[in-house]
Amino acid sequence: MSTPIDAVGEFGLIDQLVEAWAEGASTRADQYERLCQLLGSKVIGPFPPRLAVGDDGAILDIPPQRPLLTTTDMLVEGVHFLWSSERISSLGRKALAVNISDIAAMGGVPSWAFLSIAVPRKASVEDVRALYYAMGEIAGCYGITLAGGDTVQSDKWVINVTLLGLAIKEPVRRSGGEEGDLIAVTGSLGDSAAGLHLLLSSSQLKGAGESYLLQRHLEPTPRVMEASILVQQDAVKAMLDISDGLSSEIHHLCRQSQCGALIDLSALPISEEAQSLAHSIDQSALDWALSGGEDFELLFTIAREKAESLQELIHNETGTAISFIGELRNSSEGIRIYNSSNKEKKSYPLEARGYNHFSGLSRTE
Amino acid sequence: MSTPIDAVGEFGLIDQLVEAWAEGASTRADQYERLCQLLGSKVIGPFPPRLAVGDDGAILDIPPQRPLLTTTDMLVEGVHFLWSSERISSLGRKALAVNISDIAAMGGVPSWAFLSIAVPRKASVEDVRALYYAMGEIAGCYGITLAGGDTVQSDKWVINVTLLGLAIKEPVRRSGGEEGDLIAVTGSLGDSAAGLHLLLSSSQLKGAGESYLLQRHLEPTPRVMEASILVQQDAVKAMLDISDGLSSEIHHLCRQSQCGALIDLSALPISEEAQSLAHSIDQSALDWALSGGEDFELLFTIAREKAESLQELIHNETGTAISFIGELRNSSEGIRIYNSSNKEKKSYPLEARGYNHFSGLSRTE
Repeated sequence: MSTPIDAVGEFGLIDQLVEAWAEGASTRADQYERLCQLLGSKVIGPFPPRLAVGDDGAILDIPPQRPLLTTTDMLVEGVHFLWSSERISSLGRKALAVNISDIAAMGGVPSWAFLSIAVPRKASVEDVRALYYAMGEIAGCYGITLAGGDTVQSDKWVINVTLLGLAIKEPVRRSGGEEGDLIAVTGSLGDSAAGLHLLLSSSQLKGAGESYLLQRHLEPTPRVMEASILVQQDAVKAMLDISDGLSSEIHHLCRQSQCGALIDLSALPISEEAQSLAHSIDQSALDWALSGGEDFELLFTIAREKAESLQELIHNETGTAISFIGELRNSSEGIRIYNSSNKEKKSYPLEARGYNHFSGLSRTE
Repeated sequence: MSTPIDAVGEFGLIDQLVEAWAEGASTRADQYERLCQLLGSKVIGPFPPRLAVGDDGAILDIPPQRPLLTTTDMLVEGVHFLWSSERISSLGRKALAVNISDIAAMGGVPSWAFLSIAVPRKASVEDVRALYYAMGEIAGCYGITLAGGDTVQSDKWVINVTLLGLAIKEPVRRSGGEEGDLIAVTGSLGDSAAGLHLLLSSSQLKGAGESYLLQRHLEPTPRVMEASILVQQDAVKAMLDISDGLSSEIHHLCRQSQCGALIDLSALPISEEAQSLAHSIDQSALDWALSGGEDFELLFTIAREKAESLQELIHNETGTAISFIGELRNSSEGIRIYNSSNKEKKSYPLEARGYNHFSGLSRTE
């Protein structure tokens, strides 16, 4: 079906979009329940707005002693994504997920979304509904309410998500790291870059491994549970999510924590799927892990003595692996990489985004 | 000067934009001080973010017992505005002002802005700086902080403003009006439509009157002070701002308050400047007032017994006139207009946005 937007008008469209979001959200009630069990509803809510759409603005009651965390992202057709009706769902889920990842990386849980979209005249009501439904699906996992937004017409799709969340305890900044802290990451790195490669090469998917990589690129899972546990345990000192690529995020971390770092390349968590794809097309999975970006895993630092118990706790509670990839050093040492599995223990400077500059090192050498 | 954005990079640009906003804001310290004197800094702040740009998100501490009010607007080049370097300042000021107007209409004061912009590759650093400077000017009047945002490239300019504010007391909805309430508006209506006419006809401005109208269209003044006084006096029962035109806003008000209304056309506040322009080009100033839109005046209802003292108080404190244009009636009466200066007291239904449908009535007949 393809209903022109003019046929329903702006207010008719808004009603449909609110409905589509709610429908999407209702499909994920079980995941939200699991999060409530893990974190408690005092932490994760839901915190429904006193008033959402239909007035000049929304009204939110912020629980006392909970700092408000905010993040916003604009996605433009042709720059950040290519529009296709088949990919609307992935686009919607990712657009919300990357903002959730930012809130998680601040040590918070997401609660209220504001969604502005510019919709091309040629788009159908069904297209826009599919976008909101998909966002609703992700929202439903976390009890996020659609609290407001704006809907305008344009030549191209533009999606702007503003997400508000609540800190669980003290918000976690990038600046809290200290010399001697272990540097850790959740999950695996480079999967998203591998998935992007598959997407761009548009070759036929050859099995579960490639589907996994594509999924990791198209629909990253924000690490809300993992971040919440880290914060509840008072364990994490500095944290950010990996959106631009590990190498540049480490630079952000070190600059704001006023530290140097030493990273062990052999400790970077790289999935078998990414290794296997890289091998088959003569690319470097390590390169993807260092500078691919869009993994939306957490990069954080913790005190050495808490490392092991926390790794175990997070794995038990969420199934997510924590890898220790290096440590914060004195800023005078700079930001360096080495490979502990090499005989030669020489280290090299890590340039932001630029693993290519260090081709003398390889992970499996 | 024209510096390409590529020459400063994304992070360099962000630094410049934060600086330009602050520069703009510093020019309006006197207006902010006046607002503080009138409302008190407990009400109007400033409430600087604990953390603004530079991390995964911003951190805001929301004062207890102050509901959070939010509004968001997306403006797209070619749809909402035509880009020109000369008009950047007006565009920036208006983009923020219309969101401030929404917060005011909810009975609140604006505090934190999140600004996402898509910038064409051909734009210069100076263009984008001018936009932020202009927004900073308006922000400075109210103590609004730039708390976050996103900067992306695109073919066309897209500006998305999300504004958060704090309710002064209980937020004021559109739904609180009751039968018997007087319906009031601030300032004058139709000036913006008159100014738009001047802008589109691109004739030479002929004097102060036309400059005034153009100004009213390009740089509307959000009625924060007026709304704050109304709320502090516990006087206002329902309120909204006039963005789409009086006739359609009255329909919103009545639908949500479940009332009818009777509006006296002879009571609509129309400036001499708009009357004079309308007369000279054979247009109807009343038409502009009823359906022109973008006046960003407040439309509100109050109990009859409070009307006179409040009108005086607001005029004394702010210089702004309050006009009583009708009253809320039982919903069975519908939404009707009449002209109290006509001999014949017959009333007609008011259609949303559609003064043209009632050409049998004229204000000065």
